[in-house]
Amino acid sequence: MDKRMEDVIPWLHLHRLTGGGAALRHLLEQFGSIQAISAAPRSELLPCFAGDQNLVDAVLTGPDVGQFEAERAWLDDPSNNLVVLTDPAYPPLLHEIPDPPPLLFVRGDAALLNAPQLAVVGSRNPSHGGCDNARAFSEHLTRAGLVVTSGMALGIDACAHEAALAAGGRTIAVAATGLDRVYPAAHHDLAHRIASQGALVSEFPLGAPPRREHFPRRNRLISGLSLGVLVVEAALRSGSLITARLAAEQGREVFAIPGSIHSPLARGCHALIRQGAKLVESAPDILEELGALARFVAASPRADSASALAASPDPAQQELLELIGYDPVEMDTLIVRSGLTPGRVSSMLLHMELRGLIEARPGGRYQRTS
Amino acid sequence: MDKRMEDVIPWLHLHRLTGGGAALRHLLEQFGSIQAISAAPRSELLPCFAGDQNLVDAVLTGPDVGQFEAERAWLDDPSNNLVVLTDPAYPPLLHEIPDPPPLLFVRGDAALLNAPQLAVVGSRNPSHGGCDNARAFSEHLTRAGLVVTSGMALGIDACAHEAALAAGGRTIAVAATGLDRVYPAAHHDLAHRIASQGALVSEFPLGAPPRREHFPRRNRLISGLSLGVLVVEAALRSGSLITARLAAEQGREVFAIPGSIHSPLARGCHALIRQGAKLVESAPDILEELGALARFVAASPRADSASALAASPDPAQQELLELIGYDPVEMDTLIVRSGLTPGRVSSMLLHMELRGLIEARPGGRYQRTS
Repeated sequence: MDKRMEDVIPWLHLHRLTGGGAALRHLLEQFGSIQAISAAPRSELLPCFAGDQNLVDAVLTGPDVGQFEAERAWLDDPSNNLVVLTDPAYPPLLHEIPDPPPLLFVRGDAALLNAPQLAVVGSRNPSHGGCDNARAFSEHLTRAGLVVTSGMALGIDACAHEAALAAGGRTIAVAATGLDRVYPAAHHDLAHRIASQGALVSEFPLGAPPRREHFPRRNRLISGLSLGVLVVEAALRSGSLITARLAAEQGREVFAIPGSIHSPLARGCHALIRQGAKLVESAPDILEELGALARFVAASPRADSASALAASPDPAQQELLELIGYDPVEMDTLIVRSGLTPGRVSSMLLHMELRGLIEARPGGRYQRTS
Repeated sequence: MDKRMEDVIPWLHLHRLTGGGAALRHLLEQFGSIQAISAAPRSELLPCFAGDQNLVDAVLTGPDVGQFEAERAWLDDPSNNLVVLTDPAYPPLLHEIPDPPPLLFVRGDAALLNAPQLAVVGSRNPSHGGCDNARAFSEHLTRAGLVVTSGMALGIDACAHEAALAAGGRTIAVAATGLDRVYPAAHHDLAHRIASQGALVSEFPLGAPPRREHFPRRNRLISGLSLGVLVVEAALRSGSLITARLAAEQGREVFAIPGSIHSPLARGCHALIRQGAKLVESAPDILEELGALARFVAASPRADSASALAASPDPAQQELLELIGYDPVEMDTLIVRSGLTPGRVSSMLLHMELRGLIEARPGGRYQRTS
């Protein structure tokens, strides 16, 4: 996963010249690789830069290494990494969205980006009950083997990250700034713990401030990295609804927690449910719904790199696995056979499905794959 | 609307012999009228009564008028009435359900059964908030001109009836007993006020006790009389969910009020929403969903539905009526012919059907009645 400076400087150079995003992706599509762009004939590059001779000169001249001292220093820290779009380690779900970022700055465990994630987002000013719900869902999802991904904002985001960490899990925070700064500043300590126990991610270059327009772009990464998005509490016209809309556009599941019709913070969730989001009352509701998606991720070759998927089953899973066998069996039967609670069996099944140990069959049945 | 004793005794007689319900409906379908049944040849009646000679004798002998003294006394009260399946005053929406009751005992204003109704149902042991919601929705719906129909049970039902009465509106209670008794007894006063300001309805004969199996049958009338059912608070596996399921089977709208995921009384509503019920936060959400019909009703002060139904069609309806004609025609054809939106056509059709201007035919087709 270590990225040597000479490999990434061409990316940083073109990222800076193009302003990142779509322009750089189009160049990659046209020329096939980052090296091919710098080696392209001037005549082919000119139209890509709207005829701007200075930009094309800069592309052809190549990077002035001295301009990337900040990045070099940052990458010298072994906990920092850069993942580029053409990298086999680039998260496969994020690769599927209409506008995957060409560069991902990662502080912490970059391999975690390949793990199955559920985004948990919501209001920056939640109720106590909303925070409790965010914590309870995140803890359960974490124990079920999912990584909780969020935006490290005040309120629901922070509750979700904290609960995932407290449950001994790893969590991913997607930032709207460069990763050499922390926003909001109050989350300095949280950011540090996330980086050491999970990962901080950003598509924005080092030094980038928390610009207003960064937040919707950041939100598309939160949903793009995840199998689905859970909205815990959200007012109408809030950032969480943008994340949910982006998730739906990306074909990801949207889950929403209902609440009192008299609570303004339930309005956003209710609006989502009316638009087709799944109403969920508990984390097992989400795990049940994720069944099919989880199969996809487990089957994806890129997902092999995720350590969560590569680990061998724990003893409890191994026992359940033996109860399952190679003929499809219903969950109810497994509950009876194992003597475990429905919630526990459901979690374990999802977990084993994510690892590719079992597969779901029609009629809510499961069977071993190996 | 006055029903003379000699007209209804044949109905009461056959109702009693057949046990009411489907058996009597099948006889009516086979022989065409209540009179034709008593005049049918023994050989044709025998198979209808599973070869029971005694029953067929009783049909052919005709009623012993002395057996219906209780009904005679009850009908002597001018506020009591009987509406039979073949009566033009039989509620048209109820006529559409798969198993319309052949006889309706009505105490109060029988014409009210033809008014546009919304059923409001829920737990017998609601929270304070649930009662408040039932009251607020019922008051708003009443002021908008809809009749609130419910089951006069403790809890949400009673809150809904009370709020409709307090808002100066009329309300319909469907009973699971004969109308000469009140269940629950605590609602004696409420029943009296409903009868004087609205209507009590039952398909059960006088004297019928509140048997367990009466309640689901009663619930199908609550939904069958109504354009839709609002479930305010309901536990899983509750009677309100049965009403909602019946409503869905009858093609009626189902509305549910969400609540805290920690409230067992919200679980039923959440289950309904997951199954496709409309999540509503306020009465206007319901009115919007009911569309043009609700707007029309709102324009009729004090829900004077009898006159509303008798009013002549507005110009738009008159145009659509002329497009319909006297041969059954599909709604899609009408959308093409009229150039109106499907939603608009659908609303207008329901509206005209309620007024008896058209009738629904098999295969989703419509034809004029006059």
